[in-house]
Amino acid sequence: MKTYLECIPCLVDQTIKIARQVTQDENKREILLQQVLKALSNVSYNQTPPHLGQQVHGVIRKVLGNPDPFLKLKREYNQVVKGLYPGLKQKVGSCSDKFACAIRLAIAGNIIDFGPRHHFELMKTIDQVLYKKPAIDDTPSLKEDISKASLILYLGDNAGETFFDRLLIEQMPGDKIYYAVRGAPVINDATSEDAYYAELEKVARIISNGSDAPGTILEDCSDEFKNIFDRADLVIAKGHGNYESLNEVEGKKIYFLLMVKCKIIGRDLGCQVGDFVVKREEKKTGASDQEEKSRKNQVKDMESAL
Amino acid sequence: MKTYLECIPCLVDQTIKIARQVTQDENKREILLQQVLKALSNVSYNQTPPHLGQQVHGVIRKVLGNPDPFLKLKREYNQVVKGLYPGLKQKVGSCSDKFACAIRLAIAGNIIDFGPRHHFELMKTIDQVLYKKPAIDDTPSLKEDISKASLILYLGDNAGETFFDRLLIEQMPGDKIYYAVRGAPVINDATSEDAYYAELEKVARIISNGSDAPGTILEDCSDEFKNIFDRADLVIAKGHGNYESLNEVEGKKIYFLLMVKCKIIGRDLGCQVGDFVVKREEKKTGASDQEEKSRKNQVKDMESAL
Repeated sequence: MKTYLECIPCLVDQTIKIARQVTQDENKREILLQQVLKALSNVSYNQTPPHLGQQVHGVIRKVLGNPDPFLKLKREYNQVVKGLYPGLKQKVGSCSDKFACAIRLAIAGNIIDFGPRHHFELMKTIDQVLYKKPAIDDTPSLKEDISKASLILYLGDNAGETFFDRLLIEQMPGDKIYYAVRGAPVINDATSEDAYYAELEKVARIISNGSDAPGTILEDCSDEFKNIFDRADLVIAKGHGNYESLNEVEGKKIYFLLMVKCKIIGRDLGCQVGDFVVKREEKKTGASDQEEKSRKNQVKDMESAL
Repeated sequence: MKTYLECIPCLVDQTIKIARQVTQDENKREILLQQVLKALSNVSYNQTPPHLGQQVHGVIRKVLGNPDPFLKLKREYNQVVKGLYPGLKQKVGSCSDKFACAIRLAIAGNIIDFGPRHHFELMKTIDQVLYKKPAIDDTPSLKEDISKASLILYLGDNAGETFFDRLLIEQMPGDKIYYAVRGAPVINDATSEDAYYAELEKVARIISNGSDAPGTILEDCSDEFKNIFDRADLVIAKGHGNYESLNEVEGKKIYFLLMVKCKIIGRDLGCQVGDFVVKREEKKTGASDQEEKSRKNQVKDMESAL
């Protein structure tokens, strides 16, 4: 997905939120914001939002002189959700359709985010997701595809959300699942540390994607990761960043599991902010010129409507 | 008032709104946004928001190659409010306290704005303002000060709002009033053309402030304007921009008439977004170091609370 103009003030908002969290020094906050604005004035918006996010958060880490400014926050999220996990597991166990229940909880976990303009209430979201029908719901097809697949690649999103992913993966045949995390810290996205903290190695093979983008930018990922991505019959991708960076990939069956957190993603998916989504995508290889033209027109229409 | 970090995404939002309005060319929109981001990465936030607004809108006019991108919009606002004016005048005439009624309508007119994140409904606001008590209401003191003053300087804000200002000035002794407008186009702020369109010359002497800032930055104003500002016993200042640029001026009695349109101004005034304000300020000349220190602490507290 390309970056829309409206993604820029959202990245600026994120920077301010971070600046206020990590330092009391007003000068440092201003320098941080100014450096991010400078970076955003020099990038092409024809890239995806995770491309821009990667650059912005690189600048933030550099200015702060801190390779992982969200480490404390990630550990807090991890601890909180670890405490919730046994109760959530029991909840799944008591459902008549355990798989559907675990899918919904996995999406609820996607509310854990430090990114978009957004405050979250985890417990409220958990209750909601169990009773609210997803706006797009390809759960039955996902269930079937999982049973047929010989290699499944599950792309994690945020720290803490990892426990929710475990609930879902526990409903899947673990011997054929790879669970991928970011290759280095970016925002509160899950890295290996967070995956192991959620003991995901008990139900899947944990791999790093080798990239510090807040999404899955294939050309920035390691060869090992790309090899597994290529071989996977099925990719399950959690959250905004993975959607934004993979929704135009051709020749791969991908299920996007996410909560809609901003108007831009909402428009792109034809949903409202707050909606839950289980969406199957399998773009044909080599989209024709006509398709590309039609897509560009759609983008234009969408932008006029914003 | 200094610029808060949160003013930056607001200026970025304004730029996008403008970009979408003035051109369909996606490349031009991106260049516009990038140039504004670049400008915002190079300015000091120790200046007031109108200082930054002046630079941002200078960049916008330059990139668009258009000295007055809001001309059409300003003319539309002018026409709409011209149509409302006779009815509003009648409304004032039928009030038992005509001055208080005109003050409230003058504030309602302040809703006309293209600046902050904001959509406005003029008629709804007019109805509201007549029945809602201003959150800060120094109207009685203003009435008394007007009767005693020998020279009054009224600082206009936006085009169209000029007709609302006329309603209020009609309740004041016209021979001692100067009505000041911006010296050159900036956003939809009123310039001489808009003041004459509202026939303000019938009730006041129209002057230009000689500056293209969306506020009143004294050091940027013409000598003629500064001379009148110095001589005025009383300044009536409309809107956010005039408040942001003048609220720390010492040794001058200023009444700020405005509608609170953003959280930053709300916090500064101790009000809510949507509140109406008639606020008297008369800062002593030469604030002591102690006062300055206390102000800085207040700023810090306010920022932590944001």
